Amino acid sequence: MASLLLSCLTTTPELAGVFSDESVLEAMLAFEAALARAEARLGVIPLSAADAIAKAAREQQFDAAGIAREAFAHATPAVPLVRMLRERAGGFAHHGATSQDLCDTAMVLLLRRARPILGGYQRGLSDGLRRLADAHAGTAMLARTLLQPAPPVTFGLKAAHWYSAVQASWRRFDARFDEALLLQFGGASGTLGSLGEQALAVREALAAELGLPNPPAPWHTRRDRIAAIVCSGAIYTGVLGKVARDIALLMQPEIGEAAEPGGASSSLPYKRNPAGCVVTLSAAARMPGLAAAFLNSMVQEHERAAGGWQAEWPIVAEAVQSIGAAIAAMGAVVQGLEVNTARMRANLDSSPVASEPLGLAEHFRRRLLEE
Amino acid sequence: MASLLLSCLTTTPELAGVFSDESVLEAMLAFEAALARAEARLGVIPLSAADAIAKAAREQQFDAAGIAREAFAHATPAVPLVRMLRERAGGFAHHGATSQDLCDTAMVLLLRRARPILGGYQRGLSDGLRRLADAHAGTAMLARTLLQPAPPVTFGLKAAHWYSAVQASWRRFDARFDEALLLQFGGASGTLGSLGEQALAVREALAAELGLPNPPAPWHTRRDRIAAIVCSGAIYTGVLGKVARDIALLMQPEIGEAAEPGGASSSLPYKRNPAGCVVTLSAAARMPGLAAAFLNSMVQEHERAAGGWQAEWPIVAEAVQSIGAAIAAMGAVVQGLEVNTARMRANLDSSPVASEPLGLAEHFRRRLLEE
Amino acid sequence: MASLLLSCLTTTPELAGVFSDESVLEAMLAFEAALARAEARLGVIPLSAADAIAKAAREQQFDAAGIAREAFAHATPAVPLVRMLRERAGGFAHHGATSQDLCDTAMVLLLRRARPILGGYQRGLSDGLRRLADAHAGTAMLARTLLQPAPPVTFGLKAAHWYSAVQASWRRFDARFDEALLLQFGGASGTLGSLGEQALAVREALAAELGLPNPPAPWHTRRDRIAAIVCSGAIYTGVLGKVARDIALLMQPEIGEAAEPGGASSSLPYKRNPAGCVVTLSAAARMPGLAAAFLNSMVQEHERAAGGWQAEWPIVAEAVQSIGAAIAAMGAVVQGLEVNTARMRANLDSSPVASEPLGLAEHFRRRLLEE
Amino acid sequence: MASLLLSCLTTTPELAGVFSDESVLEAMLAFEAALARAEARLGVIPLSAADAIAKAAREQQFDAAGIAREAFAHATPAVPLVRMLRERAGGFAHHGATSQDLCDTAMVLLLRRARPILGGYQRGLSDGLRRLADAHAGTAMLARTLLQPAPPVTFGLKAAHWYSAVQASWRRFDARFDEALLLQFGGASGTLGSLGEQALAVREALAAELGLPNPPAPWHTRRDRIAAIVCSGAIYTGVLGKVARDIALLMQPEIGEAAEPGGASSSLPYKRNPAGCVVTLSAAARMPGLAAAFLNSMVQEHERAAGGWQAEWPIVAEAVQSIGAAIAAMGAVVQGLEVNTARMRANLDSSPVASEPLGLAEHFRRRLLEE
Repeated sequence: MASLLLSCLTTTPELAGVFSDESVLEAMLAFEAALARAEARLGVIPLSAADAIAKAAREQQFDAAGIAREAFAHATPAVPLVRMLRERAGGFAHHGATSQDLCDTAMVLLLRRARPILGGYQRGLSDGLRRLADAHAGTAMLARTLLQPAPPVTFGLKAAHWYSAVQASWRRFDARFDEALLLQFGGASGTLGSLGEQALAVREALAAELGLPNPPAPWHTRRDRIAAIVCSGAIYTGVLGKVARDIALLMQPEIGEAAEPGGASSSLPYKRNPAGCVVTLSAAARMPGLAAAFLNSMVQEHERAAGGWQAEWPIVAEAVQSIGAAIAAMGAVVQGLEVNTARMRANLDSSPVASEPLGLAEHFRRRLLEE
Repeated sequence: MASLLLSCLTTTPELAGVFSDESVLEAMLAFEAALARAEARLGVIPLSAADAIAKAAREQQFDAAGIAREAFAHATPAVPLVRMLRERAGGFAHHGATSQDLCDTAMVLLLRRARPILGGYQRGLSDGLRRLADAHAGTAMLARTLLQPAPPVTFGLKAAHWYSAVQASWRRFDARFDEALLLQFGGASGTLGSLGEQALAVREALAAELGLPNPPAPWHTRRDRIAAIVCSGAIYTGVLGKVARDIALLMQPEIGEAAEPGGASSSLPYKRNPAGCVVTLSAAARMPGLAAAFLNSMVQEHERAAGGWQAEWPIVAEAVQSIGAAIAAMGAVVQGLEVNTARMRANLDSSPVASEPLGLAEHFRRRLLEE
Repeated sequence: MASLLLSCLTTTPELAGVFSDESVLEAMLAFEAALARAEARLGVIPLSAADAIAKAAREQQFDAAGIAREAFAHATPAVPLVRMLRERAGGFAHHGATSQDLCDTAMVLLLRRARPILGGYQRGLSDGLRRLADAHAGTAMLARTLLQPAPPVTFGLKAAHWYSAVQASWRRFDARFDEALLLQFGGASGTLGSLGEQALAVREALAAELGLPNPPAPWHTRRDRIAAIVCSGAIYTGVLGKVARDIALLMQPEIGEAAEPGGASSSLPYKRNPAGCVVTLSAAARMPGLAAAFLNSMVQEHERAAGGWQAEWPIVAEAVQSIGAAIAAMGAVVQGLEVNTARMRANLDSSPVASEPLGLAEHFRRRLLEE
Repeated sequence: MASLLLSCLTTTPELAGVFSDESVLEAMLAFEAALARAEARLGVIPLSAADAIAKAAREQQFDAAGIAREAFAHATPAVPLVRMLRERAGGFAHHGATSQDLCDTAMVLLLRRARPILGGYQRGLSDGLRRLADAHAGTAMLARTLLQPAPPVTFGLKAAHWYSAVQASWRRFDARFDEALLLQFGGASGTLGSLGEQALAVREALAAELGLPNPPAPWHTRRDRIAAIVCSGAIYTGVLGKVARDIALLMQPEIGEAAEPGGASSSLPYKRNPAGCVVTLSAAARMPGLAAAFLNSMVQEHERAAGGWQAEWPIVAEAVQSIGAAIAAMGAVVQGLEVNTARMRANLDSSPVASEPLGLAEHFRRRLLEE
């Protein structure tokens, strides 16, 4: 059994739902049902076959554990799933498709489900950062370079920098979904040769059924668009890690300039742990490796890879959940952040830099919020 | 990752069992029960408290999903688990311990459970490779450098190289478990200050209860020994990836010198897919990133890290399962490998290098098997 | 002494020139001279000081080895360079700036110099791929999935897939330069406080002097835009690795469907090594780690990082040179590629899939070239 | 990377010397000269040929830049070097060897030269840590978990933890050199077929000439031993990064419990930058990616890899230099560390945990130093 406990800091309940066995099965069966509907409508397979497939897909009586076990010997869960589906709904299931059509399109459907969840977390975080940036336009504090004091900034400027980086990174990440959420449908060799004259029409109908864009061609060994989701997500997580590190540092009691809400210790009740920052920093520690793992897998042979493609699913699922956990955690931190302006003032006043001017702090703060 | 389908190529049923919620809970509760027994025996807590804790641990009525959900706000599942345990078995549970004592020792117990499973896979693979190396001492074949033909070797030498690398890498990996499987027990600051005069005795008794070595000191932010498991495992997976790549290349029909058993395609029944090689190559694509993720997390602050430590659990669990999947897959490939000596001969004879001598092929083969 | 031999496969002469000590010094001094000019024009420093700085910068009598040695103790080469410059040209040098302004802007200037070189390589590669895709629209060949034969495609389709992925990945990579090539100028805390009323004007004048966009604010600890260059470059290198792997596989004599020009072996004169593919595959093996290294470094503290920022320079320099080496190598491979259409035909005819139709191969080929 | 400025934080002068072009050439020519001597002594080549080769090697009139340029087209610098050597010293040069024999043995010779330099840095660091651990056995200070205060430890215990981790990690790293520093000599296919009856004797004589162990067989595609150097070095760098992070955090003026010597800022003369910690933390940020890059390259095809092997040289050179820079930097930090025991006391006294006992701090400190 896969473990909720081991992944408790690397997902959220909503995203865990998207990447659950139930949801993965649903996405895989959605592909098969849509393919059958499209092919039946065009007369490629009988309507009765499509009905049987739709019924089997709807009832979802598929055993994820059994499929997973059998998948190992075939290096893909598509083989056992298609076999089971054909046992129940007849041999027209999966007609003209290949395993990768099924798995890639299912992954795309899961990413489409994850996207608005991520977007919801993002709005919470972004609103919170903007409020901090506005509320503290006039709150002077020490800058810190190499963890040493430097001439003053404002906390509003600091928050505006966070906001600006978060917004830009989110937009970069989110834009990659538009490019990558595409139908995968090419059959055994990526030419749909077995569908004959109807190939193009089936492809278009299937895209319409699933509400997915129909790309110029299959992308069985062209993975740059998925890679761009993972990498831009890793960049975004790095940006979140910076915010989390800053806040965890400000929370040190000797500094005491900010505190996140909540965060009890199991043994020391007086402690105020930076729990949300910790979740985010742990995501930032893991994401570079996930990005590297995906990038490693990009050297995919000929028309279907021997190893590279098969490495992708768990990487993508874990990356998207980790990013989501980090956004959600930082959203909660930022929305409840307690800012101790008195300590900011006191720390600044006790420093040799206290008298230096704020320079363009307010100018830059405003410019960053306009972006 | 809590999906069997998404992780179907990255674990085995036995290892998935070790890293299941049930098993994780069992390991965590084993720590708490052993701690209570040790403390009760030394009079640190009442015997009745230890009994209540043991009973609660035995009954295992803990809701993994609930703990996981609550864990997020505390950046550790230890807080909700301890809370629930105290609700059932009283406030003496977890006495003197800190969250990391619980989580790290549980991880160590899981690794101890995984080790013989990995060892079993290893024996299968190792025996298979040795047999190939012995059976084909006299089977001449083309060497291939940069994927181009080179003067002949024997398939026995090739298999002996695989064997030797696999054995050495396994020994390096396995030896890291001896160094790393240690009790973690240090309390809030790693000094067991709250246990007073009894601290040393509790520590020793707890180690004895769990059958774990009692290291010189707690290792809350000293992670090199766990890192060495992950990295040596990644090296071993790289070695397995090399074997898998070689076999997948030999299986190309134009070369046709070997074939793994099984491996049907969903759309092309005449194909013989290198499914076991693919599972292994996908592990080899992912492991470098997992190693990087663990290494990233090693910069752990002071007496307990804010982010680095919390990143470790899912990395270790995923790494060990991926390695296991790779060993098991290659074991099956090697044990059932069909070697086409006629094609080896024919490919060699049709090459300009056919007449070159075998040189030290047999000498090296024997030396490699002696190691 | 840094080594040309150790990096002989990871750069090109043109790019090695861009990232040479001479060029780095020139970029650093260009920043200082431009700053002095801007400040002198605005009356912030005397004109004579700017002249002295410009003269010192022009003469370039700076000892890279000495600066490098001294840099270690300061964790930046900016400190010794500025000290030397002030010794020669007086204390107005570097007025109002911080080390990171100097180093980051120098990096941006180097990237600006590298960009058209990369673009030149890209055009060569892209033209070559397009020609292959056009010339072989009708050249049927085996598809290969999991390195096993699959129904036919055309070599034109295969080349069109390469072309399309290369073009899209280049555009994604190149677009990141537009976003990231920005002036860095913020002074000690990112507020330009020491420049008083003239801060904004100096900033604008400096941007104009250097011909760099003036971003809304300094980006001392906002590294997502540089990260996006490295990551999109890693993605592009992965795409190139796929092309290289395909060609190296086609070059196996048992398959013999393509051959790159040149590539002698030191010991086996009859061999035709896939040397350009090897250079590219070695870049594809290294780039994921470089991307991970950059991503790791993104968690940068407060107003200037203690470690993360300082890790960037060698990563960026190595990444850009590796990408360039890969594009240049594949350009040469593709432009000189010998395609053996007879072997393609023969391999196809001897396969059980020979009679299957080409399906949408031509349709997809044309669509991919239109993108 | 051929720029001293770009690599100024990632090496030391001694290590830069080891990995300079001059040193690389010297190592490559040492292999060729030793091979010629061994073969001449056994009558495989004429003595006069060996003398000519030795003379050419001694005079070292080889143009590194020219070799590097030509190397690109061959995917190895061995081809142009051997060609030049043969032009000067005749065709018996490199007799029976392959490019990889030359390059791998040269890498091994460079690593052998680097090892005592690393060991020297290590002794300095280790001695410094031991002194801190002994001097501060009784210096109570706050523990800090998740960057929040926790019951007291001693600074001696903290330093003993650093010492123990550093020692164990160094031993693990150093032991890998014993395993990996081996002669590489196998000829075109790893069988030394072209040397006939004399193959074994030449191999032994060459090993003796170079003072390198003669392993059971060539290791052209068996890279686990080199991987283990890189990975154990990455682990060690992670351990050093932890020490550096701790010290950088203690140096925050609001905490003020320690300070490294030196470290001026270019713009803020009153600052005390953690420059040595920064160098170390930047190495710790880069090393996980270098380890991942090496691990990626391990899937090496058949008897010589097409890409994986060729990726190794720059990774190994950069990794070893980065590790050395980190050890050297931390050695200087630790040996000059100023410990502010009054601030430790004051920070502790102002915390709610002040009255808690030190527990086993002294016991653990002593145990850690005994290891």
